Amino acid sequence: MRFRQIFRLIGILNFFLGLSMLAPLIVSIIYSDGSFFSLLYSFIITSGSGIVLFFLIKRGDYTSLSQREGMAIVTLSWLSAGFFGSLPFLFSGSIPNITNAYFESISGFTTTGASIISNIESLPKGILLWRSLTQWMGGMGIIVLSIAILPFLGVGGMQLYKAEIPSPIVDKLQPRISETAKTLWKVYLFITLLEIGLLFLGRMPLFDSICHAFCTMPTGGFSTQNGSIAQFNSAYFEGVITVFMILAGINFSLHFKFLKGAFRVFDRDPECRVFISILVILIILVTFNIYGPIYHSLSHAFRHAAFQVTSIITTTGFVTSNYANWPALSQIILLLCMFIGAMAGSTGGAIKIMRIILLAKHGYREIFRLVHPHAVRPIKLGGKPVPEEVLNSIWGFFILYLTLFIVAVIIMSSIGLDIITSFASVAATIGNIGPGFGLVGPVNNYLPVPDLGKWVLIFCMILGRLEIYTVIIMLAPAYWRK
Amino acid sequence: MRFRQIFRLIGILNFFLGLSMLAPLIVSIIYSDGSFFSLLYSFIITSGSGIVLFFLIKRGDYTSLSQREGMAIVTLSWLSAGFFGSLPFLFSGSIPNITNAYFESISGFTTTGASIISNIESLPKGILLWRSLTQWMGGMGIIVLSIAILPFLGVGGMQLYKAEIPSPIVDKLQPRISETAKTLWKVYLFITLLEIGLLFLGRMPLFDSICHAFCTMPTGGFSTQNGSIAQFNSAYFEGVITVFMILAGINFSLHFKFLKGAFRVFDRDPECRVFISILVILIILVTFNIYGPIYHSLSHAFRHAAFQVTSIITTTGFVTSNYANWPALSQIILLLCMFIGAMAGSTGGAIKIMRIILLAKHGYREIFRLVHPHAVRPIKLGGKPVPEEVLNSIWGFFILYLTLFIVAVIIMSSIGLDIITSFASVAATIGNIGPGFGLVGPVNNYLPVPDLGKWVLIFCMILGRLEIYTVIIMLAPAYWRK
Repeated sequence: MRFRQIFRLIGILNFFLGLSMLAPLIVSIIYSDGSFFSLLYSFIITSGSGIVLFFLIKRGDYTSLSQREGMAIVTLSWLSAGFFGSLPFLFSGSIPNITNAYFESISGFTTTGASIISNIESLPKGILLWRSLTQWMGGMGIIVLSIAILPFLGVGGMQLYKAEIPSPIVDKLQPRISETAKTLWKVYLFITLLEIGLLFLGRMPLFDSICHAFCTMPTGGFSTQNGSIAQFNSAYFEGVITVFMILAGINFSLHFKFLKGAFRVFDRDPECRVFISILVILIILVTFNIYGPIYHSLSHAFRHAAFQVTSIITTTGFVTSNYANWPALSQIILLLCMFIGAMAGSTGGAIKIMRIILLAKHGYREIFRLVHPHAVRPIKLGGKPVPEEVLNSIWGFFILYLTLFIVAVIIMSSIGLDIITSFASVAATIGNIGPGFGLVGPVNNYLPVPDLGKWVLIFCMILGRLEIYTVIIMLAPAYWRK
Repeated sequence: MRFRQIFRLIGILNFFLGLSMLAPLIVSIIYSDGSFFSLLYSFIITSGSGIVLFFLIKRGDYTSLSQREGMAIVTLSWLSAGFFGSLPFLFSGSIPNITNAYFESISGFTTTGASIISNIESLPKGILLWRSLTQWMGGMGIIVLSIAILPFLGVGGMQLYKAEIPSPIVDKLQPRISETAKTLWKVYLFITLLEIGLLFLGRMPLFDSICHAFCTMPTGGFSTQNGSIAQFNSAYFEGVITVFMILAGINFSLHFKFLKGAFRVFDRDPECRVFISILVILIILVTFNIYGPIYHSLSHAFRHAAFQVTSIITTTGFVTSNYANWPALSQIILLLCMFIGAMAGSTGGAIKIMRIILLAKHGYREIFRLVHPHAVRPIKLGGKPVPEEVLNSIWGFFILYLTLFIVAVIIMSSIGLDIITSFASVAATIGNIGPGFGLVGPVNNYLPVPDLGKWVLIFCMILGRLEIYTVIIMLAPAYWRK
């Protein structure tokens, strides 16, 4: 492990992370919101630390970074971004406590959207923009990670996406990643601008349009309003955001192909078809479940069912209705959505549709095998056989996800949280959703969780976001042996 | 599929099932409890139907029953036993409703122990004995099923136990099964008699000693008392029953070897070591969690922690304390136990330790593989490599278990049950435990569950008991195609 090279790369990252603080800095000047100096100091420290790391460490050979080093870079990048990203919160006094500030920052960069801020509207505009920006940048990181890096690290079955887009070959982090990244970021930026435009056209203030679009595309879920999207009480905003949450839940390489002219690409992708089908079925179930007991008009029931199911399954976490008061069936469906997640290669978290499809196919194959013991029946996705090693990788991912989920729930319950809160807080953070049930429900926030619990949830957010393996592998003795 | 041969075998089963009703019949005479005629009619109908089926259908070739026919026999045996077993409840008026009577009877034969009877002590002694006897006979069925039949049907990784005991070769149901069965039943009978003796020595009435031993060994959990084991308030009874629940949770082929003189067999078996370790760790955790808030003496906390953890993880379901009032950590541990279960080849249900071990090893292997992509590292159990097809079979089992669990929970919640009750009722029936949480908690019963819900839970009990595949395979189109 060449730590010097790793830290040099983290230095480059820090430099750009610091630069990104100039955007909220400008906003703080425009609004004279009093957050200028806190953002300035954060910029100086973050970019400064990047420059120091970059120039102190001699340039090495980047083209031959190993798989293990790749994983270390990915994990350390998010940990470091979380740390430096918390500085504006701390310096401005918006979040005076280190645990809380790190929680909010990691929740941003992992695009989770779990918040510890009770009165969001009282924050300076500069800090509010920074909070949204952490999610938007986290989303950029995730797209590159899930489409251009993880497939080559062989993590959790993501290998299936190797051929999707021009990408570097085998398990080396090569310069071509930056080409892939640039292409994908253009798509990401384009859809974000589209959403800002549509929200602004519907008369959402420009600042809020930007912040909400910044938190939709990464399936983040931070809002500038205390009452999240519910506060606008606008069917138009909800409709626009629902559509863009679905777009954000789709593999970005499909968007890339679509923009290149392959208009039937969504329809032809097997994962996308299943994603949309699940979405439609669950929205219908929830609509009829809440029509009557919660909403007295079918259109209202549909509007909120569509928004909340989409928000949770894409792991965004925006709220238009206090779904913790919905009937048990709807709550269980939303809880289930927290585990399903959106498509692989999207900005969404959790287990993801592609893995769910392959697990289901595996289950059915075993039934088939018992009936026809001698038949060979490879599992296929979109007509192509899936290698057994990819399936093994997905099973490993699934069992690790469940195991870490259970361990975290046990810890949360042992520090005194009730069963529902223990379950939901872990499900909502390891799946990068944000709001859960119980104490951390849609109209509450994570402030009352004890500090130890917050650190457990921080760990869950990072674990979930980096597809478990990338983090957990660093805890395996085999990783550190030469 | 040769249905005639299948029904002829069911006829033989019915004949003996009817004969077994003579035991409660004799008890009803001794106690003059008024259940004589209801048991007599049940005996005549059950054995009579067996004789009719047996003589009406011509003898066929039993030595060449196919795998598919084997599964049909197993599933139909349990469905049929449930039906005829419910007759004494119906005829005596103890349970006048057909759904409830079938629920209680299936709960007995699947050794679940979920009850719909509110005032158990008001039942005639003959009916009480029959209720316990359904569990004891269900347990006999399970031992033969899990050690002598399922391994040869290739179900859910049970193939691993193929070599454990003299057994028929490959997937044919041959006469040697009856030899294996007799050997195992001797062990089962011996341990049952030992428990009856020890309970009776502690001055439990003979009738209650017999009934409780009949419900301990199959990890059933029906009691003759409204308050289950708590009603005796005796540390001695609890201690004896705890030990015998552990014995019942161990693979019966180990008991067989132990009685043959292999005294270190428990210690040497990898699954048994993990089972005991999990048990010890969870008992310690629960003891310290309930010491203080629930019990003010450490010995009391230990006594109830040991009993309840053992009762739930072995899927027995006896109760000495209202664990639904315990702190969240203990409740979550008990909920987890409902999924873990005891050893394969025991009378316990749920996922089972052997599968949990292999799933965990698979998860760790994937971490190892990411670090050493080119290393070949077969998964081993007790030093022997486990074939990949067995692992595939276990993964299939696991995903089907989870899927059916989720589907059943969705149905339960859609008929109006709350989240906790929906979760716990399905977990406690598909895992063959009995009592759950919420409406179906340790001091409640299943009577308030709507009829549709009861049928869903009946399906869950059979699914769980017959290792999912045996039942679900009959719903696959491939099963019925020639």
